Amino acid sequence: MRILTASLVLVSTLVFSALTAASELPSANAERMQLRITNLSTFGANPGGGVSRLAFSESDIEARKYIATLMTEAGLSVRIDTAGNLIGSRDGQQPLAPIMFGSHIDSVPGGGNYDGDVGVIGALEVAQLLHDNQISTRHPLQVVVFSDEEGGLTGSRAMVGKLGPDALQEMSHSGLTIAEGIRAIGGDPDRLQEAQREPGELTAFLELHIEQGGILDQENIDIGVVTGIVGISWWDIVIKGVANHAGTTPMNARHDAMLSAAELVLAINEIITSTAGSQVGTVGRINAEPGAPNVIPGKVTMSLEIRDLSADTMSKMFQLIEDRAAVIAEQRGTNITFKHIPFDAESAPTDEHLQHIIGRSAESLALTSKYMPSGAGHDAQDMAQITPTGMIFVPSVGGISHSPDEYTSPQDMANGANVLLHTILALDGPG
Amino acid sequence: MRILTASLVLVSTLVFSALTAASELPSANAERMQLRITNLSTFGANPGGGVSRLAFSESDIEARKYIATLMTEAGLSVRIDTAGNLIGSRDGQQPLAPIMFGSHIDSVPGGGNYDGDVGVIGALEVAQLLHDNQISTRHPLQVVVFSDEEGGLTGSRAMVGKLGPDALQEMSHSGLTIAEGIRAIGGDPDRLQEAQREPGELTAFLELHIEQGGILDQENIDIGVVTGIVGISWWDIVIKGVANHAGTTPMNARHDAMLSAAELVLAINEIITSTAGSQVGTVGRINAEPGAPNVIPGKVTMSLEIRDLSADTMSKMFQLIEDRAAVIAEQRGTNITFKHIPFDAESAPTDEHLQHIIGRSAESLALTSKYMPSGAGHDAQDMAQITPTGMIFVPSVGGISHSPDEYTSPQDMANGANVLLHTILALDGPG
Repeated sequence: MRILTASLVLVSTLVFSALTAASELPSANAERMQLRITNLSTFGANPGGGVSRLAFSESDIEARKYIATLMTEAGLSVRIDTAGNLIGSRDGQQPLAPIMFGSHIDSVPGGGNYDGDVGVIGALEVAQLLHDNQISTRHPLQVVVFSDEEGGLTGSRAMVGKLGPDALQEMSHSGLTIAEGIRAIGGDPDRLQEAQREPGELTAFLELHIEQGGILDQENIDIGVVTGIVGISWWDIVIKGVANHAGTTPMNARHDAMLSAAELVLAINEIITSTAGSQVGTVGRINAEPGAPNVIPGKVTMSLEIRDLSADTMSKMFQLIEDRAAVIAEQRGTNITFKHIPFDAESAPTDEHLQHIIGRSAESLALTSKYMPSGAGHDAQDMAQITPTGMIFVPSVGGISHSPDEYTSPQDMANGANVLLHTILALDGPG
Repeated sequence: MRILTASLVLVSTLVFSALTAASELPSANAERMQLRITNLSTFGANPGGGVSRLAFSESDIEARKYIATLMTEAGLSVRIDTAGNLIGSRDGQQPLAPIMFGSHIDSVPGGGNYDGDVGVIGALEVAQLLHDNQISTRHPLQVVVFSDEEGGLTGSRAMVGKLGPDALQEMSHSGLTIAEGIRAIGGDPDRLQEAQREPGELTAFLELHIEQGGILDQENIDIGVVTGIVGISWWDIVIKGVANHAGTTPMNARHDAMLSAAELVLAINEIITSTAGSQVGTVGRINAEPGAPNVIPGKVTMSLEIRDLSADTMSKMFQLIEDRAAVIAEQRGTNITFKHIPFDAESAPTDEHLQHIIGRSAESLALTSKYMPSGAGHDAQDMAQITPTGMIFVPSVGGISHSPDEYTSPQDMANGANVLLHTILALDGPG
């Protein structure tokens, strides 16, 4: 079913709106997509599975060359913008703002073979289907492979004009600064503004991606219609007690920062989970000082992260946590302070019209779908600043991501590419 | 009152048993003790107060020279044993096993002016009083300054034959190995066995020391009659959950090791405090992995220390903690294991007869006293392996120790020296 039917021959001038049913469109080739995922996974492959294809590394550079050949094969004209984004372009019938779609192929250290890759291979599959079936569109199309997504959305930040001089001097995992890395992959950090797209320059941006969570897999749903990328806020929490000798200080004379910390960790969890919604709160890092088994901790520092699509909800959660911390501090004779870390990612709702087109596309393909936020960050959140943006999720088996155990089935990848194709053509069509 | 009364002249052959009342004995000179504490605190003094008089360091060596001059001044004959212990001896009237008393003068980094020092200055005060008042004893007396107490009871361990070749090769805070350090202060690690005392070689060992806890100070009690030095057991606790993306993993799909850790920290505290007794339990160290604000901790490691005079109580506490951990692990879908650290200090009860003598001595001096365990380790715990051992505590203001803020008043130091004097003479007497 996912092998192209030779009978479906379309003339190059045919546009989607002329088709009477979605079933007449070509379908993504799941075998081809899997083969390309497998080929891509050889670049930066780790012995135990998965890849460490760090942005700007040799394996990243080689993998981008492989993707460029696939772009050419799909009839796209290839270029690298000054931010190092790899772009394959296809003309439209009309002088309209292009529809852009794509994702990234760089990975975290010890990453898997699907995060980003599925979106790029899916975008290429769409371009390949249009090319092979001589389907032209009114809008120009641009397939994009963003540079250095995992290191901080470098390519998309540059594209929306938010990659400043400071970020360029930061060290990337590859051992190069961001500026050096951009140069290594064919960009030019000195002319970064040439990569920038102004609002209105694009008709839309669409990104296909694995969910990275386990909701679709667990609920056995084919497609996630992403309602937005959640906002993220970070705090450092400092709990001060009194360090003292663990042998000579009776239990009732202690001001143990560890006990306040433990109580606060549980309180955070309780506050986050006792309110309806999909907000999440995490304490991922903790440290006690002086940190010896025989000294009562005088100070504990820990991290707090809150994510949600609604800034109001995030603010409400934090207020409840801060209030509870004050009670804990008072009861235990300790002091608790929160220091906001200016790292925040603001929540980025996707375009509602695009959400509906994605949902209808899934429906027309007889795929089940669910509207859901993305808990992870994506290039789409940058792109949403300059253009209507949509995201399509496909299931991650077991919700595992950033791990060699990351897995999405060929059928699910093909489902995602089909929804992407239908969405692009629906968006393109005059209807 | 604490100035020697010139009227109290005793002939050199007079022994304590011939005295009819404690009030006829000389009293410790609080001003002299404070002056000597002040003098001693110049060796290794830190700009912000307190000392870093690390064992084997130049300041340790110089301070020991100062103490040796005080020994000579008190009529003691001075020698250094092969373990580096500084010993001032005084003959007895009879060929009996000596009564030994003393403490240490080395400090932790950033330590105070009283830990160890009070016991040494107090022992010297006793020797000085006996000398100045020409009081002779039946037993020979030995004032000892143990080497490297803070680094692991080095001198006393050698004296009881427990300082092995491995310990000698360990690095001390001074930058020298223990063997090199012993040599630097005048010992000879190659002839360590010559420092060893066999059971029966001493009549008793007595140590005056600051409490280091806040019980005496808080309850306004003059003297602590130490019932023993608590045993110490250490465990590493490893809590395993599942590390996962803090954005994409819903709260109800998490196996967060941090939550189990927090619950266990509170449970440990609850178990230790809900049982009658003076046992203490401490979680002093904690670490989460991978330790990033945006990753759910897959693993938390933390320390557990339990101290008590009763090995049975310690074992019972640990059993309760282990049982509770199993419940927490089950409820939260995590795995909790305890790894015992072979560091254990066994509890060292002091000699009951000596406890009573110390208690009666305090009483005869109209001092309030309290029987209490020592939560901290001391050279006395080693000495208890070869001889009846007693310990006398004086108050630490605010319970502060191992800090520049450590403080014990001149009056309290003098009280301790007086109790030590009375105890030695009571023990010495034929009665």
